[in-house]
Amino acid sequence: MELSEDLTTDPKALSSGNVSKLFRHLGNFDWNHVTPVEYKSEEQSWLSVSRRVFTGETGETPQFHVRYFEIGQNGYSTLEQHEHEHVVVVMRGKGQAIMGEKRVELGFGDVLYVAPNEVHQFSNSQEEPFGFLCVVNAERDRPRPVEIGEGSSCF
Amino acid sequence: MELSEDLTTDPKALSSGNVSKLFRHLGNFDWNHVTPVEYKSEEQSWLSVSRRVFTGETGETPQFHVRYFEIGQNGYSTLEQHEHEHVVVVMRGKGQAIMGEKRVELGFGDVLYVAPNEVHQFSNSQEEPFGFLCVVNAERDRPRPVEIGEGSSCF
Repeated sequence: MELSEDLTTDPKALSSGNVSKLFRHLGNFDWNHVTPVEYKSEEQSWLSVSRRVFTGETGETPQFHVRYFEIGQNGYSTLEQHEHEHVVVVMRGKGQAIMGEKRVELGFGDVLYVAPNEVHQFSNSQEEPFGFLCVVNAERDRPRPVEIGEGSSCF
Repeated sequence: MELSEDLTTDPKALSSGNVSKLFRHLGNFDWNHVTPVEYKSEEQSWLSVSRRVFTGETGETPQFHVRYFEIGQNGYSTLEQHEHEHVVVVMRGKGQAIMGEKRVELGFGDVLYVAPNEVHQFSNSQEEPFGFLCVVNAERDRPRPVEIGEGSSCF
């Protein structure tokens, strides 16, 4: 069996269905066959966040989506809550997470389970981007932004 | 808001429910609050594989499970197929995957989507363990071992 560099380069297969795919890490947290997209269209509640979706928006059928988020220096995600859960795995750099009334430092390999309706936010104060995988249910509720002073005794 | 070292150390909360949890990476691909378990009880079809389950077996309710597998030098997983899909993300070392009639080298950050019923197997020829996350549907069919000569023209 010959060694292959890729599993498929057929754009149709890559974007439309249950075809095995390899998203090759090209170094520096960039990947083949996936491009960064806007974190959210709304721009008030977050800063310097990019999103890559490996599986979930290109025809695959699992009940979960696997995404990679990256937060630049002094960036932060929306302070929000939702019914669906997150499983986050840190791949790059260091960052912080607000989780309800707690705040934790995160680094490579840390795995964070965000329970339903936990108020949460991710941020990065370092020069190195803070990058993490985030797995969610394919069918999920919309995040609800949380105002400071709401939802937690800490704000 | 004070910085916390952990989110909960309550064993009951950790093992029974939708409570936010931090599986701290302790270095060397070992984590707080999770212990390696046997890959499979059947021992004929695989060698030198360990499994850690972060979420899915301790009361959380997402529709997916997040596990970490590690394959030691000259080890391999079962050559198998199943209806459910895998999303694999390499965290440690290098390895190989048989994917149907193809064979690919995998290294840090590579993301592999294994389509339904793809015949697949992971292996490691290096001294450094080959470690990867593997995300699956919470409800899934049992893997079916594939005999060499069956299921693919390559065997």
